[in-house]
Amino acid sequence: MIIRPHLHWFRMLLAWRGSVLPQLLPRLGLIFCISVVAVAAHDHLLPVTLNLNTTAPFSLIGIALAVFLGFRNNASYDRWWEARRLWGQLLNETRSLTRQALTLPSRHLPQEEFGEFFAALGALPHALRHQLRKTEPRDDLAARLPAPLFERVIASRYKPATLMLFLGEWVQRHARAGAIDPMAVIAFDRNLNGLSDVIGGCERIVSTPLPFAYSVMIHRTVYFFCASLPFGLVDSIGIFTPVFAVFVAYTFMAHEAIASQLEEPFGTDDNDLALNLMSVITEDALRDLRGESALTLPSPQAEDYLLD
Amino acid sequence: MIIRPHLHWFRMLLAWRGSVLPQLLPRLGLIFCISVVAVAAHDHLLPVTLNLNTTAPFSLIGIALAVFLGFRNNASYDRWWEARRLWGQLLNETRSLTRQALTLPSRHLPQEEFGEFFAALGALPHALRHQLRKTEPRDDLAARLPAPLFERVIASRYKPATLMLFLGEWVQRHARAGAIDPMAVIAFDRNLNGLSDVIGGCERIVSTPLPFAYSVMIHRTVYFFCASLPFGLVDSIGIFTPVFAVFVAYTFMAHEAIASQLEEPFGTDDNDLALNLMSVITEDALRDLRGESALTLPSPQAEDYLLD
Amino acid sequence: MIIRPHLHWFRMLLAWRGSVLPQLLPRLGLIFCISVVAVAAHDHLLPVTLNLNTTAPFSLIGIALAVFLGFRNNASYDRWWEARRLWGQLLNETRSLTRQALTLPSRHLPQEEFGEFFAALGALPHALRHQLRKTEPRDDLAARLPAPLFERVIASRYKPATLMLFLGEWVQRHARAGAIDPMAVIAFDRNLNGLSDVIGGCERIVSTPLPFAYSVMIHRTVYFFCASLPFGLVDSIGIFTPVFAVFVAYTFMAHEAIASQLEEPFGTDDNDLALNLMSVITEDALRDLRGESALTLPSPQAEDYLLD
Amino acid sequence: MIIRPHLHWFRMLLAWRGSVLPQLLPRLGLIFCISVVAVAAHDHLLPVTLNLNTTAPFSLIGIALAVFLGFRNNASYDRWWEARRLWGQLLNETRSLTRQALTLPSRHLPQEEFGEFFAALGALPHALRHQLRKTEPRDDLAARLPAPLFERVIASRYKPATLMLFLGEWVQRHARAGAIDPMAVIAFDRNLNGLSDVIGGCERIVSTPLPFAYSVMIHRTVYFFCASLPFGLVDSIGIFTPVFAVFVAYTFMAHEAIASQLEEPFGTDDNDLALNLMSVITEDALRDLRGESALTLPSPQAEDYLLD
Amino acid sequence: MIIRPHLHWFRMLLAWRGSVLPQLLPRLGLIFCISVVAVAAHDHLLPVTLNLNTTAPFSLIGIALAVFLGFRNNASYDRWWEARRLWGQLLNETRSLTRQALTLPSRHLPQEEFGEFFAALGALPHALRHQLRKTEPRDDLAARLPAPLFERVIASRYKPATLMLFLGEWVQRHARAGAIDPMAVIAFDRNLNGLSDVIGGCERIVSTPLPFAYSVMIHRTVYFFCASLPFGLVDSIGIFTPVFAVFVAYTFMAHEAIASQLEEPFGTDDNDLALNLMSVITEDALRDLRGESALTLPSPQAEDYLLD
Repeated sequence: MIIRPHLHWFRMLLAWRGSVLPQLLPRLGLIFCISVVAVAAHDHLLPVTLNLNTTAPFSLIGIALAVFLGFRNNASYDRWWEARRLWGQLLNETRSLTRQALTLPSRHLPQEEFGEFFAALGALPHALRHQLRKTEPRDDLAARLPAPLFERVIASRYKPATLMLFLGEWVQRHARAGAIDPMAVIAFDRNLNGLSDVIGGCERIVSTPLPFAYSVMIHRTVYFFCASLPFGLVDSIGIFTPVFAVFVAYTFMAHEAIASQLEEPFGTDDNDLALNLMSVITEDALRDLRGESALTLPSPQAEDYLLD
Repeated sequence: MIIRPHLHWFRMLLAWRGSVLPQLLPRLGLIFCISVVAVAAHDHLLPVTLNLNTTAPFSLIGIALAVFLGFRNNASYDRWWEARRLWGQLLNETRSLTRQALTLPSRHLPQEEFGEFFAALGALPHALRHQLRKTEPRDDLAARLPAPLFERVIASRYKPATLMLFLGEWVQRHARAGAIDPMAVIAFDRNLNGLSDVIGGCERIVSTPLPFAYSVMIHRTVYFFCASLPFGLVDSIGIFTPVFAVFVAYTFMAHEAIASQLEEPFGTDDNDLALNLMSVITEDALRDLRGESALTLPSPQAEDYLLD
Repeated sequence: MIIRPHLHWFRMLLAWRGSVLPQLLPRLGLIFCISVVAVAAHDHLLPVTLNLNTTAPFSLIGIALAVFLGFRNNASYDRWWEARRLWGQLLNETRSLTRQALTLPSRHLPQEEFGEFFAALGALPHALRHQLRKTEPRDDLAARLPAPLFERVIASRYKPATLMLFLGEWVQRHARAGAIDPMAVIAFDRNLNGLSDVIGGCERIVSTPLPFAYSVMIHRTVYFFCASLPFGLVDSIGIFTPVFAVFVAYTFMAHEAIASQLEEPFGTDDNDLALNLMSVITEDALRDLRGESALTLPSPQAEDYLLD
Repeated sequence: MIIRPHLHWFRMLLAWRGSVLPQLLPRLGLIFCISVVAVAAHDHLLPVTLNLNTTAPFSLIGIALAVFLGFRNNASYDRWWEARRLWGQLLNETRSLTRQALTLPSRHLPQEEFGEFFAALGALPHALRHQLRKTEPRDDLAARLPAPLFERVIASRYKPATLMLFLGEWVQRHARAGAIDPMAVIAFDRNLNGLSDVIGGCERIVSTPLPFAYSVMIHRTVYFFCASLPFGLVDSIGIFTPVFAVFVAYTFMAHEAIASQLEEPFGTDDNDLALNLMSVITEDALRDLRGESALTLPSPQAEDYLLD
Repeated sequence: MIIRPHLHWFRMLLAWRGSVLPQLLPRLGLIFCISVVAVAAHDHLLPVTLNLNTTAPFSLIGIALAVFLGFRNNASYDRWWEARRLWGQLLNETRSLTRQALTLPSRHLPQEEFGEFFAALGALPHALRHQLRKTEPRDDLAARLPAPLFERVIASRYKPATLMLFLGEWVQRHARAGAIDPMAVIAFDRNLNGLSDVIGGCERIVSTPLPFAYSVMIHRTVYFFCASLPFGLVDSIGIFTPVFAVFVAYTFMAHEAIASQLEEPFGTDDNDLALNLMSVITEDALRDLRGESALTLPSPQAEDYLLD
């Protein structure tokens, strides 16, 4: 994800990195070429005439398309924001579980008892990230988990859920030993449920894209519209057709392109969520509550975010 | 449900499987024929003239229709996404109940005690799927449930609710035997309520479609609009009328067609939810937590999803 | 509520029962007559000319109106769907309370102890329905409740709330007798709160319609627009004016008519909720969990729903 | 708030009371005068010509404005409906707390013990109403509260919160005396939190209007648009300009006017919430559960609602 | 944040402070200049002709833009309102925790025991505000916290979370000492979780702006549209072009400008949230429940809100 600071209104007009313009340039170039053909055909420089004499049908279809695109973008944005919300909830539940582990036991627990609990909790965002991006979690988990737990987690198919089960077992062990009373077990259980909802929510978003027929239909309509628009504009605005056609195409194509990035928020496109950064921040928040030193945030090379 | 991977923008223009185009072709063919008639009537090839000389009323009605269709699509999509969300919640609650059964009992329970509990929990998504699709659950339940429980469930009218009641009775039995203390009963009860909300939510969606008058009115308006549009376009764009009329008709009809698929998310249309797959994944997630081997996912023939 | 099965796209164009067309016919007839007058005035068949020579102002107002109408329909639909959601929640809470009554008591309760509890729970949806529709609950309650409870409920002003209080007293009685332990009381209490929210939510919807000024303004604007539209269309489309004016009027008036039905979801219009049916289903779900025989669903005459 | 029954579609066209028409009449008169000037200027009755020859820029700005206005109305309506929802929740929590006080204590409490509790609970909606409307609560509170509690509440800055604290103290007193066991304390605490959220939610709405810049910009744009519209219409529709300009102005201004009423739902405009009525109904619902006689609802003079 | 009272409709047209007009004036001046150039070019006062003869393409793009801008504004407003909602929840949780501390302990705690608890609770909104605005919290925290707690908090990286942990430790200390029974610990824990969600929610909003590509694309499109509009208007409305172009530009630019203010609700723009005021009010509400004297609200100089 590319995060840039609030820019001055004029500098924002010229922003390059982080906008979808670079990616769209070839397609906009194509629209430009089509426009030039349309102008040539209209001015009898070509042996055929293709102009439609009217912008009216394009107004109709263009505005209808804007409405549909608006709703679709809304749906994509909701997916993206829900994904962000779930990762925010992951941080909240991590903090709450940390606080509970530190304050709910009814008698003093030796420091080393906490080791595995916090290791599992700190590894959870990494395990989830790797599952969502289908990347190899081995290194990140090995670095954080004690060996037996690591073996168990790496052998399981749903690694974050296995980590969660381990957290539940930790609570059970201390409950049976009398260090955590039954009421406190319930408090832990509530937050473990919350964490479970976060994991399941992320899995839901990653496994169920927007209905394919919907995306494909919008995509097709936008590109057909943009490609035929020059022939509708040329009779009214002549030589200015290329400028306008490219401008309209930019507006529609950029919307469509951003929406397809946002609808899969766990990918690694420019506008996808900074999962690397958020995993480390979640772990760091846990460490801060334990009074441990800060982690270094991932370098901008790994995942793009500009804070200049 | 047809899930296809993120395609290149150009390949997406040509996507066939999973789009609604195949299903709409005959209707678009009809619009094409009407357009040809309109062109012929306009060019005095037919003895009658039917052209309207103006696109203006079509702009008015077309854009109004786009707005209405946009809102209706939104409502359909919300139903679809809520249905998906409920099945996601089913997975979450299944996992949480599994974790609770494994970690909340205050003393060690022998392994065989868990058998019925997990059998009922694993059968639940299948029972729910069959209820929602009004298919025969006998085989799927017989394969998963012990005989007495199977008899009881198959005799009941609301099978998932009966399974839930059984889960509650299991908790009660162990609570009365002192293996689950009263606090833990409450924790189970909370997740059983959650599961009950999932079942009830799905029943609500399946039993209450969008108001029929609403669907029928939008449907009618879209088709009348598309069928009369060629006569409005022909005077301005002449020979290009068929292309445009079919394009606009595609946009509107496809929207309407996708919305009617999405509004009944538990059906077996291309864009409906992959209930088969999700039932098996839910059961598999439960097995994973118990350290059991993976289930084989249903084959693509049974329910369409492309992962190529 | 009229529920009809998914129809073939062509049969749907001709649907009559359950659409708002029958109710709108006289008003559409009026628009037709106005259109004929407009055509006559335009063709100098009448001594006055009223045509406006232009569709432009109608496009402006028509599209603006579509946007406003879209938002208003959204608000109406949200009310309708929230009402349905609340009745779904009523079913969920009923099932959960049934499960709790059957499984939470810490020792065996004789069967007759449950009689009053389930009688009150089964009578609740009926009491709520009668309150929402302002109909006489006497018969339905007398058939379900033991005499003393019936007397008490019928004498109270908010009958469902009194039934709820009785459920709470039942729990209290058994809690004081030691059959329900304090933790289980909390579990009951949680679901009683949920039921209370359902009742209060329904009362809120029924007592607070959409702001009257809002409905009246939209209504007025739609009808003025439809009535004046023929004069705007006649100059461009001449003889086709009646067809188009009626078509546009149908689109706008039907939207407005459906929205006013949906905004009062507890009424008995075609598109209102099937409260009769849902009350019986809720009661039947409770009976199913107790292993009792099925209730007969209300006949289609009582409340319209087509399942052919 | 003015609540009127469902009217016949024709009578609704003529509704006067409860619509915003009376309040807008002078401004619509102004638009009418501007239109007459525009017609006069166009027909060379005035020495200047001001007509614009085209409706096109007005279509552009008018439709854009409709979209913006639609979104803004949505936001205002959401505030209004959230406020109503909060007052509905106030009723629900009041009923739940009443049920809890009557059924949760583990041994019989003498009737007089409940006096202060129900007095504070019944006074709460009145205290909240006066805080939200910034009116003097002294009379309403003095009539309901015992003297020492009244003194304490009237001396505090946030009166509903002080009443809530008192409810908590009542629970504490009986808990320490052993009449309410610790589990039941938690059940009370949950609903006290709910009540606290209601109070805080209302304070949030009343203290944070829609961003001023947003309201002022929409307001300004609507009025400038309506005032200049006649000059754009006169060339196309001539003598009909005043009718149309006033009609369009009514549509836009009424939307804007209703939105500004709804966005401050606790005021005393026609479309604001009937807080007087709701306070009394909440108190009455509490009395009904205790078997006490009905309160008389506030007379229509005090706050406008028509139930004819 | 600038809060102004409900103004008369006419005075509202002229509002200056709190509107975005001052900030937009230079840009609107630029549009005015471009319009003058367009008029001059059209009237052959310049050696080049740039007019486009038609408004049609501008209608198309302008309305599409309005739709996109509408959705984007919606998203920005949702962020703003969610932020406000979170701060409202902060107040609610603060009150609930205050009530719990005062009423839940099962035996009398000496007054001085509460000192640290309420100090930490009162400091929390200030710590959160400084974190969100990246300002120096040292003074505000030093004035409220006892020295050892101050040292600990100032040394941590996430100060509000550290304060929360301290609140949990306070509960633990008294729980171990037997003054707070296990059930009450759960009640505290629930509200501490709620507070944790508030803190995490605010961090989420501040760390994740709207996708940059989305903002930049809308921004660019709006400015390009406004800058080219005069050339499209000049042929139809001639000398009135500057008036209209500036009016349309105001509508679009102001929407865009307000949306960028709202999307970062914790800043110090005119329309951002009054965090200073809300921090003090939250602290004051806590003091009121303890019967302490009122705090003075921050002066209007510190953060702009007009209550005249």
